[in-house]
Amino acid sequence: MAKYILGIDLGGTKINTAVLDETDKIVGSARTKTEAQLGQDAVFERIAEISQEALSGAGVSASELLGIGIGSPGPLDPDTGYVIDSANLRFRNFPLAPKLADRFHCPVFLDNDVNVGAFGEYKAGAARGASVVLGMFIGTGIGGGIILSGEIYHGFSKNAGEVGHMVIKPGGPRCGCGARGCLEALASRTSMVRDLRKYVKHGHNTSLTKHAGRHLEEVTSGALKDAYLSNDKLVRKVVDRAARYVGLALGGLVNVMGPEVIVLGGGVIEALGDHMMARIQKGIRRVAFAHTLEQLRVVKARLGDDAGVIGAAMLAKEKLFFDFHAIPAAANAGAQGNGPAHRG
Amino acid sequence: MAKYILGIDLGGTKINTAVLDETDKIVGSARTKTEAQLGQDAVFERIAEISQEALSGAGVSASELLGIGIGSPGPLDPDTGYVIDSANLRFRNFPLAPKLADRFHCPVFLDNDVNVGAFGEYKAGAARGASVVLGMFIGTGIGGGIILSGEIYHGFSKNAGEVGHMVIKPGGPRCGCGARGCLEALASRTSMVRDLRKYVKHGHNTSLTKHAGRHLEEVTSGALKDAYLSNDKLVRKVVDRAARYVGLALGGLVNVMGPEVIVLGGGVIEALGDHMMARIQKGIRRVAFAHTLEQLRVVKARLGDDAGVIGAAMLAKEKLFFDFHAIPAAANAGAQGNGPAHRG
Repeated sequence: MAKYILGIDLGGTKINTAVLDETDKIVGSARTKTEAQLGQDAVFERIAEISQEALSGAGVSASELLGIGIGSPGPLDPDTGYVIDSANLRFRNFPLAPKLADRFHCPVFLDNDVNVGAFGEYKAGAARGASVVLGMFIGTGIGGGIILSGEIYHGFSKNAGEVGHMVIKPGGPRCGCGARGCLEALASRTSMVRDLRKYVKHGHNTSLTKHAGRHLEEVTSGALKDAYLSNDKLVRKVVDRAARYVGLALGGLVNVMGPEVIVLGGGVIEALGDHMMARIQKGIRRVAFAHTLEQLRVVKARLGDDAGVIGAAMLAKEKLFFDFHAIPAAANAGAQGNGPAHRG
Repeated sequence: MAKYILGIDLGGTKINTAVLDETDKIVGSARTKTEAQLGQDAVFERIAEISQEALSGAGVSASELLGIGIGSPGPLDPDTGYVIDSANLRFRNFPLAPKLADRFHCPVFLDNDVNVGAFGEYKAGAARGASVVLGMFIGTGIGGGIILSGEIYHGFSKNAGEVGHMVIKPGGPRCGCGARGCLEALASRTSMVRDLRKYVKHGHNTSLTKHAGRHLEEVTSGALKDAYLSNDKLVRKVVDRAARYVGLALGGLVNVMGPEVIVLGGGVIEALGDHMMARIQKGIRRVAFAHTLEQLRVVKARLGDDAGVIGAAMLAKEKLFFDFHAIPAAANAGAQGNGPAHRG
């Protein structure tokens, strides 16, 4: 009877959920705003409610759930299911997986949102079946996920894969993380808008000011794309530069990690990928050793917004069916954090 | 009867060999110059001769060899045992492991020299037993090796771990690999000497010119250390800067790979490690996320020049005894390249 998996993609601004049947088909889905400012307990209730809504829409009762996979911003501990400290979510040492397991009476598997997105692309998207996958997702920030031999790579820190926080330019612009010159501070949408704003302040012109406000308060990836396509020189300069940095960073990662597939996703790539890809490839080729490039594929993500929910559901399925470390039921895992809801 | 393992560390300038008994004790060793200019076939004969010398010195006959491990500069293919193309060695698509297997009538396991050094530190040195080990070896170049869950990590490219070839300074100095601004072009001994030479040319003074020639033709790591300790300002500036770059690069790698232990080795670290370590650590702390640093250990390599031969022998032992993909005998593997000498 139990045969469905629920995938949850918890983000700083929205929560996506999807119910997958045993053929991995999405039979129901629902989304809502996160409203992180309400605090962690309220956000948890919103997760539970929207999950219930997805289940109801699919005509699935909670008792038919085999398990739940959830991706969340980190840092987090995939072994205990706790979100350690997420600035975007205002979570702090929060037993997200144990509480969900308690609520829905099924095993719950927690992982980093970007890891889960990369896993989705590996299981059902652009990187299907590759032995070493490097996922990089470029939006307001730059996140990454590494899939090795079919499993999300966590490292000893349990939070590996943060490809946005390699220093590409020592002494460069300050990153949100506090360091200087991280890739995220050079090639994320946030960093592009910061540069555009600076140029505008110094008297340069861009078509963006027409729609995104005099101070470019609301530049979306779509707006960047439109400006790029209309030959906005300033936007071209900034976007092309970002693509070059991404290429150089990825070239180094190719030398270190030797991936089979690099998947590029996120809002910036969805909007501008076609225009950035050639420069990104060129940067990779400039840095990576020839023999590592021969069989490397660099592809755009295919699942878009669904990568998170599909990856989360696939992760749960994988853990339930193929991982002999998994504990098959977690209904008795307390929400008080006495023990892990599962083991990864 | 057969109970010994031979470890070979093939370098661009010298060949080290060691015979290990079943308790992993070195019972014999021998070393010679590589003489790479003589060509690959002559170098192969030198490897075979010095190996025989080590065996004879230990009173061990070739028939008592369980297997041979050999580390070589790459790129190479650990699965087929071929060195693909090594500039230092002048090897080109050379069946090193198959030929050795043919000569010594035992299985031979080939891997990258730096990987093997990192593996040695993992098995018997400073990184013993760590789950995720990142080795960085700084000398004339900068090489690296990654050990994941007890195994050398090769990636899909089979040549992962090249931590010296991440771009740390776009548009920076030209690297030996052809790219610009690689870590190797910023923090290897070669790059330090290049900078010192430039300073001297522009009229700056350094005590190094006294012993290493007016044009600093022969600056060893030891000479750099002596100058550093004698408060040579120019040398301090250059060494400190290199340490900062190493720290920033490692900080990024901590975010991406989440290692448990970082092992630093190589000639530069052996000579100057004590003086570079604080700056390296500071760079790491500046970049790596706080929660990844809590349990991270950054240590100096302990095996020195022996890391290669010990690592190579340990690799062979591991493959022979614990890897069920290994083929136990390779005496019939031809030197003509018809098949692999072993499978990794």
